[in-house]
Amino acid sequence: MKLQNARGTRDYGPEDAILLNEIVGVLRTLFETYGFNPLETPSLERRETLTSKYAGGAEILKELFTLADHGKRELALRYDLTVPLARYVVMNPTLKFPFKRYQIGTVFRDGPLKFGRYREFMQCDADIVGSGSLRRDAELVEIAAKAFEQLGLKVSIKINNRKVLDGIMDAVGIAADKAETVILTIDKLEKIGEDAVKKELEGKGVSVKAVKQLMSVIIAKGTNKEKLTQLQSVVVGSEGKDGLKEIAELLSYTTGLPVEFDVSLARGLNYYTGSVFEVVLKNSELRSSVAAGGRYDELIGSYVRNGKEYDAVGISFGLDVITDALKLGRRNLRRSSLVAYVISINQDKEAHAVVKTLRNASIPSDVTYSGKIGKAVNYANEYGIPYVLFIGPEEAKAGKVKVRNMSTGQEQMVGVEDACKIIKVA
Amino acid sequence: MKLQNARGTRDYGPEDAILLNEIVGVLRTLFETYGFNPLETPSLERRETLTSKYAGGAEILKELFTLADHGKRELALRYDLTVPLARYVVMNPTLKFPFKRYQIGTVFRDGPLKFGRYREFMQCDADIVGSGSLRRDAELVEIAAKAFEQLGLKVSIKINNRKVLDGIMDAVGIAADKAETVILTIDKLEKIGEDAVKKELEGKGVSVKAVKQLMSVIIAKGTNKEKLTQLQSVVVGSEGKDGLKEIAELLSYTTGLPVEFDVSLARGLNYYTGSVFEVVLKNSELRSSVAAGGRYDELIGSYVRNGKEYDAVGISFGLDVITDALKLGRRNLRRSSLVAYVISINQDKEAHAVVKTLRNASIPSDVTYSGKIGKAVNYANEYGIPYVLFIGPEEAKAGKVKVRNMSTGQEQMVGVEDACKIIKVA
Repeated sequence: MKLQNARGTRDYGPEDAILLNEIVGVLRTLFETYGFNPLETPSLERRETLTSKYAGGAEILKELFTLADHGKRELALRYDLTVPLARYVVMNPTLKFPFKRYQIGTVFRDGPLKFGRYREFMQCDADIVGSGSLRRDAELVEIAAKAFEQLGLKVSIKINNRKVLDGIMDAVGIAADKAETVILTIDKLEKIGEDAVKKELEGKGVSVKAVKQLMSVIIAKGTNKEKLTQLQSVVVGSEGKDGLKEIAELLSYTTGLPVEFDVSLARGLNYYTGSVFEVVLKNSELRSSVAAGGRYDELIGSYVRNGKEYDAVGISFGLDVITDALKLGRRNLRRSSLVAYVISINQDKEAHAVVKTLRNASIPSDVTYSGKIGKAVNYANEYGIPYVLFIGPEEAKAGKVKVRNMSTGQEQMVGVEDACKIIKVA
Repeated sequence: MKLQNARGTRDYGPEDAILLNEIVGVLRTLFETYGFNPLETPSLERRETLTSKYAGGAEILKELFTLADHGKRELALRYDLTVPLARYVVMNPTLKFPFKRYQIGTVFRDGPLKFGRYREFMQCDADIVGSGSLRRDAELVEIAAKAFEQLGLKVSIKINNRKVLDGIMDAVGIAADKAETVILTIDKLEKIGEDAVKKELEGKGVSVKAVKQLMSVIIAKGTNKEKLTQLQSVVVGSEGKDGLKEIAELLSYTTGLPVEFDVSLARGLNYYTGSVFEVVLKNSELRSSVAAGGRYDELIGSYVRNGKEYDAVGISFGLDVITDALKLGRRNLRRSSLVAYVISINQDKEAHAVVKTLRNASIPSDVTYSGKIGKAVNYANEYGIPYVLFIGPEEAKAGKVKVRNMSTGQEQMVGVEDACKIIKVA
């Protein structure tokens, strides 16, 4: 039997998992500082919860992993963390709003594979339910900007508004029943380029004139302000005008942040109703977005019969691609979280006492009991452990350890308490 | 459509998730201090990886959730984190040993439901691969003791050794092919009681004499030392003697910890080869174990053809039951991670500036924009947020905020920077 990962899944070995924990740590701290509370929902959901017509849309349902339990109940693996949030909100009627939650977990999509795309991947979402204020949309943009700044990744945060897109459809005479598919094509501009978008639009039966008008609008260049002005002359209906007003308001709340109004941005999921945003890396080989989200004021309400509405806005960080981006960008990746490695030279009991002291001082450390010394030193080297502490008969007799700084090669004979100080200061 | 969780799954709302994060934080810090590195493997595995004959055993395979991808590849959801670790180790031949990893994640078992048992539940595992030293077994026992001490839960750590159990089987004349099933029955002693165990053993064809001998051994009372002495006179074969030596050695490494030698402890999984341990709560209504593990020196090697052996020992913490235990034991559960709540009285812009300052000072905080003041105060009350900061026209004019300590009711008009100090000191 040949051991392999299931197709489209990946392991995070220590080197990757250390990065992942760093990313999650940054996001978690930001979320909590911004007033979000944690929520955990299961990977397994009842199939009908995930296939409700208002959920992600027909496209995403093609990628559903389905299964049944022994009682033949129809189940599926969640494809995002948003639909489970909607379920949770509806099932917990005593929640007070705004309800701000974050969730970190894997989601599953049985879709086509390509570089950087997995069938099981990790998302980290923050959502605000029960507030229609654009200041909430701005909060998420702010968190994204801060998170990537803290992680040392340069990004551009693209924003748009579904109402603007609908207004454009209206202005160039695209029928309502065709608008969704046309918007999906427009969304591909960045990926497939102008010519391919034109061709696809024509293939979808959009008139040559309308295609021309559309293209001139969606490839609008210039500053955010210039783009807004340009669109104000194109968009005539009240919905589109509202959308432009919202973009102007959101831009006013996010001055100083790397925000770019991008008329072609739509985001695939059909549940968005207002703002949409997508964070892309600057100066990176990785072309995929690292975070994305938007406002979905109708999704949660669609699950309840009484017509109650729940304004909601959220953002989702793609942990796999962020990990890959950090990996590409850093020269020295940590291969281990160990800071000290104790090597026993036939002094197992004393070595154990040494590692105990290190651990009590909160120094991530391990010990190797009697074995080959060269092999043990090689282990510390291989994993980039900064300090090695030798304890042999001589050291044991003197009640000391020999501390070797692995990058300088410098050695010191000191008491264990002093060893802790040396390691902690560095 | 009625929204429900999939049967046997649960949500962790903020109250539970805050506890869960606390538990994970304690464990993660301990693991890293003890030299474990993080590892993440997917929930989805190839079915054949999980059904290999050396994996968890026939019992657990009855509880496997199976599915297929669109390419008809046979998949399954992992039922533990140990078999994926074995896969990872075998697939990464450049790993240096000892390889110490921890992993936190959900596992899936389509088994019978009862109180506190779920079909998707969270485990947190630490394993050491590539060392046969009993000092490694002791490390895991030590981590368990420290973890529950830090969490404020009183526990007893039961230990036993599979070799001792095999030695007992031998001594009372149970045939090798029957030993496994007899051990499974013995393992139920705590749960079903002496009489039921006797009955089940007789039902399995064990002679009345052997049952009597067995019972006298497994219900051995007294101190660890007394039990060891008692068994030394029963167990005659070399394997059993080795097992007793190992227990004596492990006990010597764990003096001062709440460790109890329990001859009836076997642990269900058939891959254990030496030490087994199980952590149970003292003085709790919850009867289930909160952590368990053991040594499995043959599992990983069973996946490779070249006969290479990998000594390994691990422990798994049951995060769901630990969360439930903390919930039962605490009077004041945190319902929110928020520390400050800013209430705007028609001063949205100023309120936003206030919350921005709080967040820059790393104070978990949120703001409510213009709305009903009573409702906003009620929100803070409901979620136990310790500080409310009001900002109305008067405060805005004075460049101050009114800080209310929600437990004392005391109010102070201060500048925002001073508000941060008041909140941080408390």
